[in-house]
Amino acid sequence: MIGGSIGLAVRKRKVAGEVIGVFRRPSTMRKALKARAVSRGTLDIKEGVRRADLIVIATPVGLIPETVLRAARFAKKGAIITDAGSTKAWIVEKVEKKIGTSASAHFVGSHPMAGSEQAGVESARVDLLNGSPCIITKTAKTDRLALKKVSRFWSALGAKVKIMSPKEHDRSVSLVSHLPHIVAFALAGAVPAGELECAAEGFRDTTRIASSDPGLWADIFTTNRKEIAKAAKLFDLYYRDIVKAIKSSRRADVVRLLAKAKSKRDKLAYGEK
Amino acid sequence: MIGGSIGLAVRKRKVAGEVIGVFRRPSTMRKALKARAVSRGTLDIKEGVRRADLIVIATPVGLIPETVLRAARFAKKGAIITDAGSTKAWIVEKVEKKIGTSASAHFVGSHPMAGSEQAGVESARVDLLNGSPCIITKTAKTDRLALKKVSRFWSALGAKVKIMSPKEHDRSVSLVSHLPHIVAFALAGAVPAGELECAAEGFRDTTRIASSDPGLWADIFTTNRKEIAKAAKLFDLYYRDIVKAIKSSRRADVVRLLAKAKSKRDKLAYGEK
Repeated sequence: MIGGSIGLAVRKRKVAGEVIGVFRRPSTMRKALKARAVSRGTLDIKEGVRRADLIVIATPVGLIPETVLRAARFAKKGAIITDAGSTKAWIVEKVEKKIGTSASAHFVGSHPMAGSEQAGVESARVDLLNGSPCIITKTAKTDRLALKKVSRFWSALGAKVKIMSPKEHDRSVSLVSHLPHIVAFALAGAVPAGELECAAEGFRDTTRIASSDPGLWADIFTTNRKEIAKAAKLFDLYYRDIVKAIKSSRRADVVRLLAKAKSKRDKLAYGEK
Repeated sequence: MIGGSIGLAVRKRKVAGEVIGVFRRPSTMRKALKARAVSRGTLDIKEGVRRADLIVIATPVGLIPETVLRAARFAKKGAIITDAGSTKAWIVEKVEKKIGTSASAHFVGSHPMAGSEQAGVESARVDLLNGSPCIITKTAKTDRLALKKVSRFWSALGAKVKIMSPKEHDRSVSLVSHLPHIVAFALAGAVPAGELECAAEGFRDTTRIASSDPGLWADIFTTNRKEIAKAAKLFDLYYRDIVKAIKSSRRADVVRLLAKAKSKRDKLAYGEK
């Protein structure tokens, strides 16, 4: 879904002369070709990456480090490799430890913060990245020119690029992305199935991302568990304060807690896509 | 917003010959007339209700019981009064205790489960109720003919009517409506404002209802605090299970908890409005 959306946007905006898709399954390749998300497709990573200037790894998080390293083996000199994974420290550390300074390709971690609860190239959208945040990571080992090129790449797709360290990234997304997913999963999981008949739009919106892929998110969560533990604690404290105030009918305290939350959420509304 | 949406739908579907709006503020009356949500408007409740066959109270929850009782004093014989409040036991008990068997009007509690984070007649939508659940409540004191008429009224606006006791209603909505609101408020409240720059659609959806009116919801929450305490506990247990499994990297447990949540949420998707 994210890989397909990148392919569609690159082709529409003519950011590259050619988009070569490397696939694990022939069925996915056929779908991607049909959706015109890639110019050409192959099941052979060597064949797919050897002439590429930029290689974007869009596998599930758990497979990203090994896929980056495989791509690096076959990439041409000066090629740049980036990814679209939702955690960064775990990926970047694993890659930087093994890629070696002798590698002909440079790696820069990326996280285009766009997506939906849907999976698969059939859910790809040409405008997915347009207007969305995209974090790219910088470490002591990051090649400066490669960083600039990766930044330009995402900007050309309409994303709003921010540069930070992998750790800063992981902290930030633990709060604005991973935590909302945990909360949505917990809400959908907690409500007895028999009650869902009366669920209206509030419940639907709040739990929409609980339809996301469990395996994909289990990987994202466990590879960012330290930051998630801290974010989860912050939520827990606020949640308990509200519930306690309701239980003891402290109306003024309830209003204060809700109003503080609302004022933060209202500011987001200006940028509503 | 809910009153205006009812007015718009009643007029469009020709469910009543005339919709008379009773307002507290002249400015709201002007807006409602401009939006054509009412045929006529008045600031005088007596004048507004005296010839009405059906009276719908759409004030904030805290004002509903006293407004029902005032309307009952001026209503004609055989008139039916209902409401649009998000809690029911608190409202229905207060009304039934005081309305007396000698009242010429009958009261039936209703909760059209539609709305949004927006407030005010300018946010009213003619299709708001169409396809939405609407719970109406039945007690030992409920007049059977009045119940039938109120049921027919909401059905005529396109709502899917369910009849239950006020207590059953409060339990049900504590889970599918009040709990999601608390969770959304807690999430928006917990995340530091400085992080919101990177918030993408997941965060936006999950916190959309945190833009709801704090005073309105403080009333709803505190008038349903017993059921909310139970619902809050259910959420808390599921949330803690997920967080604990993430912290200790028990991937299989994380997947199982997320998959159970996803399977429930996926079933809702068929009815997505």
